[in-house]
Amino acid sequence: MAKDFSDLKVCIFDVFGTVVDWRGSLIEDLPKLGRKHGLDTDWTSFADDWRGLYQPQMGRVRKGDLPWTRIDDLHKEAFEMLLQKRGLKHPGEEAVWEFTHLWHKLRPWPDSVEGIGLMKKKYVVATLSNGNVALLINMAKNAGIPWDHCFSGETFHHYKPDPEAYLGVVDSMYLKPHQVMLVAAHNGDLAAAQKCGLSTGFVHRPLEHGPGQTRDLKAEGNWDAVGSSIVEVAKKIGC
Amino acid sequence: MAKDFSDLKVCIFDVFGTVVDWRGSLIEDLPKLGRKHGLDTDWTSFADDWRGLYQPQMGRVRKGDLPWTRIDDLHKEAFEMLLQKRGLKHPGEEAVWEFTHLWHKLRPWPDSVEGIGLMKKKYVVATLSNGNVALLINMAKNAGIPWDHCFSGETFHHYKPDPEAYLGVVDSMYLKPHQVMLVAAHNGDLAAAQKCGLSTGFVHRPLEHGPGQTRDLKAEGNWDAVGSSIVEVAKKIGC
Repeated sequence: MAKDFSDLKVCIFDVFGTVVDWRGSLIEDLPKLGRKHGLDTDWTSFADDWRGLYQPQMGRVRKGDLPWTRIDDLHKEAFEMLLQKRGLKHPGEEAVWEFTHLWHKLRPWPDSVEGIGLMKKKYVVATLSNGNVALLINMAKNAGIPWDHCFSGETFHHYKPDPEAYLGVVDSMYLKPHQVMLVAAHNGDLAAAQKCGLSTGFVHRPLEHGPGQTRDLKAEGNWDAVGSSIVEVAKKIGC
Repeated sequence: MAKDFSDLKVCIFDVFGTVVDWRGSLIEDLPKLGRKHGLDTDWTSFADDWRGLYQPQMGRVRKGDLPWTRIDDLHKEAFEMLLQKRGLKHPGEEAVWEFTHLWHKLRPWPDSVEGIGLMKKKYVVATLSNGNVALLINMAKNAGIPWDHCFSGETFHHYKPDPEAYLGVVDSMYLKPHQVMLVAAHNGDLAAAQKCGLSTGFVHRPLEHGPGQTRDLKAEGNWDAVGSSIVEVAKKIGC
């Protein structure tokens, strides 16, 4: 039996990996910026290592070891940790911010802008990303992603998968949890949202981590909609 | 000498009165909803009285007499206060929410969508309204206003003219105050933003309060851009 989405009002999206190809974008942009600032390293492994520090850096905030800190600042610090680890020279504050802002310029997967545009006709479409608000706004402008609004961990001072992030959107929109759907390429994110009562949409992104990807290769939960693109998920929820 | 806006990045807008015609919209919509729910009164004066309770209701939050409360809830309570004052029967919770949601459906002034669209090509365009986030998102969808983002008093748990609201946007965007311009039809709002170092744009809205309007009939401060429409302000800041 087809699921009933007649009560659905808002679709919120995970962004890194689900909407934009962080790895492909960084692997393309890092060497160029490296040349500009006289830094040479294996930028593909650098991109993976940088992303590898994302969860541990947020973990420090989630555990209370750090006060609330935005992703731009966590990305900047992680970049500097990797410079040091690789014995690379610090290129100065301004250059480090230029590298950090590569995350503001990540490119969407080929189906993202069309799929979100389709959903926008019927639902409120918004981010719910751990990326901070400035990053999400700048990325959307750069990539032409037509969000109605950018919800962020910053909005609620809680990083996903803390329930405060998912339930913060529900509360702010005066809705019931099932009237909000999280769309994500990560089973863990969807599981946390489902535990809060939200609806769930899984998008296959088998190349997010490159050709050797081992996780999130398939839907591992009882998600309400599953598709190989955001366009396919949009069609499954009646757009 | 022409002012220099080369450093400007973000234009944030007051919404009620500046972007949308709250009075004209309410005067058109209230009688229809009144008939539906069997309520009869002078709806023009009702609209003015409802708006009249806006500042006092927020004042209770700003003074700390009420904990943080969103405008939807303050509007709903004010509506119920007016029902009682006018000896009208309470039409039930659901109907009262229907009246409250008329604020989600306010229509833009004729130049608003075009002017904001013009600015969006060059700057980040966002609200900074005391209206709550759900209200602002729903209004934008209904009216076709192409915001990049909805900043609200709700975002910072402070109502304008508290400095925390203006400086909250500056901080969230990692900018300096003068890189953010508040666009508003209200001299008091602009004065508070200017005191925080923000740039300022004044839009003439001489009919916001109807034909007998006595305040905000002209620019009363040294604002950076002044126009009779948002389109005119957009042109003055290089769009």
